[in-house]
Amino acid sequence: MRFSVWAPRARHGVEVEIAGERRALHRGPDDEWFLEVPEAGPGTNYAFVLDGGRPLPDPRSQHQPAGVHGPSQVVDLAGFPWSDGAWKGFHLPGSVLYELHVGTFSPEGTFDGAIARLDHLVDLGVDAVELMPVVEFPGTRGWGYDGVDLFAPHHAYGGPGGLQRLVDACHARGLGVIVDVVYNHLGPSGNYLGEYGPYFSSRHSTNWGDGVNLDGPDSDHVRRFFLDNARMWLRDYHADGLRLDAVHALVDDSALHFLEELSSEVRELSAQLGRRLWLMPESDLSDPRFVRPAASGGYGLDAAWADEWHHALHAALTGERDGYYRDFGSLAHLAKALRQAWVYDGVYSPHRRRRHGRPPVGLSGHQFVVCTQNHDQVGNRARGERTSQLLSVERLEIAAALLLTSPFVPLLFQGEEWGARTPFLYFTDHEDPALARAVSEGRRNEFRAFGWDPEAVPDPQDPETFRSSRLDWTELEREPHQRLLRWYRALLGLRRARPELRGGRIEDVHVTHDEAERWLVVLRGAVGVAVNLAARRRAIPLARQPEELLLGNGAPVFGPGTVELDADGVAVFSVA
Amino acid sequence: MRFSVWAPRARHGVEVEIAGERRALHRGPDDEWFLEVPEAGPGTNYAFVLDGGRPLPDPRSQHQPAGVHGPSQVVDLAGFPWSDGAWKGFHLPGSVLYELHVGTFSPEGTFDGAIARLDHLVDLGVDAVELMPVVEFPGTRGWGYDGVDLFAPHHAYGGPGGLQRLVDACHARGLGVIVDVVYNHLGPSGNYLGEYGPYFSSRHSTNWGDGVNLDGPDSDHVRRFFLDNARMWLRDYHADGLRLDAVHALVDDSALHFLEELSSEVRELSAQLGRRLWLMPESDLSDPRFVRPAASGGYGLDAAWADEWHHALHAALTGERDGYYRDFGSLAHLAKALRQAWVYDGVYSPHRRRRHGRPPVGLSGHQFVVCTQNHDQVGNRARGERTSQLLSVERLEIAAALLLTSPFVPLLFQGEEWGARTPFLYFTDHEDPALARAVSEGRRNEFRAFGWDPEAVPDPQDPETFRSSRLDWTELEREPHQRLLRWYRALLGLRRARPELRGGRIEDVHVTHDEAERWLVVLRGAVGVAVNLAARRRAIPLARQPEELLLGNGAPVFGPGTVELDADGVAVFSVA
Repeated sequence: MRFSVWAPRARHGVEVEIAGERRALHRGPDDEWFLEVPEAGPGTNYAFVLDGGRPLPDPRSQHQPAGVHGPSQVVDLAGFPWSDGAWKGFHLPGSVLYELHVGTFSPEGTFDGAIARLDHLVDLGVDAVELMPVVEFPGTRGWGYDGVDLFAPHHAYGGPGGLQRLVDACHARGLGVIVDVVYNHLGPSGNYLGEYGPYFSSRHSTNWGDGVNLDGPDSDHVRRFFLDNARMWLRDYHADGLRLDAVHALVDDSALHFLEELSSEVRELSAQLGRRLWLMPESDLSDPRFVRPAASGGYGLDAAWADEWHHALHAALTGERDGYYRDFGSLAHLAKALRQAWVYDGVYSPHRRRRHGRPPVGLSGHQFVVCTQNHDQVGNRARGERTSQLLSVERLEIAAALLLTSPFVPLLFQGEEWGARTPFLYFTDHEDPALARAVSEGRRNEFRAFGWDPEAVPDPQDPETFRSSRLDWTELEREPHQRLLRWYRALLGLRRARPELRGGRIEDVHVTHDEAERWLVVLRGAVGVAVNLAARRRAIPLARQPEELLLGNGAPVFGPGTVELDADGVAVFSVA
Repeated sequence: MRFSVWAPRARHGVEVEIAGERRALHRGPDDEWFLEVPEAGPGTNYAFVLDGGRPLPDPRSQHQPAGVHGPSQVVDLAGFPWSDGAWKGFHLPGSVLYELHVGTFSPEGTFDGAIARLDHLVDLGVDAVELMPVVEFPGTRGWGYDGVDLFAPHHAYGGPGGLQRLVDACHARGLGVIVDVVYNHLGPSGNYLGEYGPYFSSRHSTNWGDGVNLDGPDSDHVRRFFLDNARMWLRDYHADGLRLDAVHALVDDSALHFLEELSSEVRELSAQLGRRLWLMPESDLSDPRFVRPAASGGYGLDAAWADEWHHALHAALTGERDGYYRDFGSLAHLAKALRQAWVYDGVYSPHRRRRHGRPPVGLSGHQFVVCTQNHDQVGNRARGERTSQLLSVERLEIAAALLLTSPFVPLLFQGEEWGARTPFLYFTDHEDPALARAVSEGRRNEFRAFGWDPEAVPDPQDPETFRSSRLDWTELEREPHQRLLRWYRALLGLRRARPELRGGRIEDVHVTHDEAERWLVVLRGAVGVAVNLAARRRAIPLARQPEELLLGNGAPVFGPGTVELDADGVAVFSVA
């Protein structure tokens, strides 16, 4: 077993501590320290010691069996008995993703618990799961964006073996796996990277403090750290892609942006592995650069999260206008989102007080990931309400119909398919009392500013906040959950049956609407979707003659160039 | 006369003060304040008053007759009697630029003083002058990068009319005019912009403090301010292009980078005006994005300053290895610079401790501005030595030959053409005593860190520091200045006569060198340049048979496939 670590900030020496015994590492070129320890192997717990200080986790620890402050453990990732030799990857364009939080998806809150629920996803008809961050974060309850051991699947979820089993089980069922990775910051507790080297730099600041050092002195090593991390999920855990959290906070002024280097390396790895791998940035910049190919000056990523699609739909259906919803709400906004995902494509945004974004010229719908809700849009509300707690069943069905007939890559949030009534709250498990208090108070104060009674805001640190966010699978036995699940299954089935619904040509999406009369019609090839958001039954004009009702509610009745629908009715139909 | 100003930070009101009398402006939409004052006109001095405070210069002042803290003056820019109606612009590719500091170029230190010296430039054979920043900065002595009234040509140089006369006189002589503009910061004294609105933002930090607000709330107005500034030089002052100072400090994370918007607007303006306009960024990023067209994901600027060309040449000829010269020095570095301007094209830079830059794939040599010295490379030395104080006349001739036979856009620094022995020192004229002291001490301390005796570092505030930096035109009557001037004229004449020297195809530049034997040969089409940097006369092998000596020193003698040269000899020759 060879231990090695990049530690330019070690002045005198680096040791590895195993079973209480410390042994000095040799200094190699370029501040790489190393030591062969023949008797160590899989299962050996160890820590590094810099300049005779306290034991620290390995920056590249693959397992933290006792949490973020404890020892690292040697893992034999190559020893897993994979059964997915026939898996050739999944094809993102035309697919539907399912966002899943391991800790709350199943009653067990583990990778193995999730395996037990995979057949439900197969029956539902989605193509891939997207796992919220799975790496070691402080404590046992958390969303995962506070991760600090970026190479170690969380011990409470089942550690490295558990994740390998989950990916293998997904592949056995034909499901792809996307892993959400956070490269823009580390969590506030258990981050020892700065003791080893300049992983962070005050040259760039982010919402979380100093930015990651992607372009300063020694940044080649820092970039390698994250590039190797990406490779690990794709190669050693057989993941099919990565969701890249908040890439606008990955500030890199160098001539080769980290994301372009990442996409280039992942493309090479994809060729080596013989399966297509996918990179999906979350960005609030509405900048086509992220998904344009490198030859066109882009970073070559595959599909960008497009939150504005969500905001346009959410504001139109709920009537909410707080915060960033101020920029949305009209059917014109929604129509633009349905056509091109980005509403702000260079036009003035009142909420941002400036022009924002640029037109997605030449992009395919398959380069946008859209949703009617996700962990952020639900969990960043004071009380974590899903749309099922904000909208009627009829409006939930409208939302699902617009999502699943769109030319984009739809993403469902766990439980959405049955209108789960459990909230998805912000929960944490910080062990440091001062930090725990700061998080609890921070959350209360954040919403106090918006006029909330602090007592009504669940405490992130309260274990009950976490428990109440777990999906309640018994809901599936009751209405209206069964009705909604049938609706989602039918829409997903329709999407599989009608190639024009899976296609990505946004030029072929035609949307008509009437702001005053509150209706909207989407035409995509031979399929149309009509939505009546008025308070009464009415006839909606159609540009093409409807042929057959494919799916609907609100008692659709077709006439010559029209469809009549109840209030909050929706019809999906073929056209002549 | 209509006064108007964008002043979102005015809470109660904005007034204009004329001859001691204050009149209230009306508030228009979007925080634009305005007032018609019929009796005001060209020559009227005025100031704005926010919320009843002290009088402030107009952010868009076109003239500050009494300096940065004094009143603004109304100017009739359109009233100038232009005589350049036949001027159709100059063509940057193949041209040679001449960098000029108005305050030190002529004994008078004014725009009119510069006019009196233009015939020298015509005789020399350059194509355009590049004016170091001309806008109002504190005091009367300065490089110009501390400008604060970005629309006002400096009163000490002759104000708006003076600059118009200079441009007109240049055009009359067939010389183009490039204006150096500083959009990345304002000087430390006299900057009142922040009282009017959010021109700056702590979201981005630069070496000079808060960055310009190009992407935060209200940034549309800030961008408009700089875009209108660029338009003014090109339209109202008939400038042919802009040099954009330190664009790496123009941080803009929005989807449409300010520089792309600028290049797009300037392209439109160019079509309106019927003459080609040029944009030349100074950037230390070695990133092709700045000069790639927008269709390839670039910002569409024309030619980027490439300091690495200078560094490679300087380190090879002087033997200096301090600071960033550490990354240069070998003939291999120089050969790479001669081939593609950027030495660091993605390879590891020891000075930066990281990989830097990317290859200039697909770029033309005409997209790089290179020099053997410029205001920064000279003036940022403790004692402001030009290369004429560091190198023998023979090596100055070698430098000039490599510069003026290159496929790039050569830039000469005022006086270089005759090996001026006057230094170009860092000089300032801050009136605020605390700031003046800080600048003087800062300069001393900066060089103390490099082992300099502080007493040996000229004081920027001392008027003598400025005076000693003035060109001494009487040098032109003496040797070796006359010899050098003949050499430069001959090289420039050769460049005009031989189209292959003006061409920009870097693929056709072939460089051979021998590190140990200290020789280097450049072949460009039918022209070759051989350089002997060894300490003795020697034969240098040539890949193609020399035909005719075009220009040379060091007693060149051609043999079969060789040229023999004295130590520090150089031969420019045609090949068969």
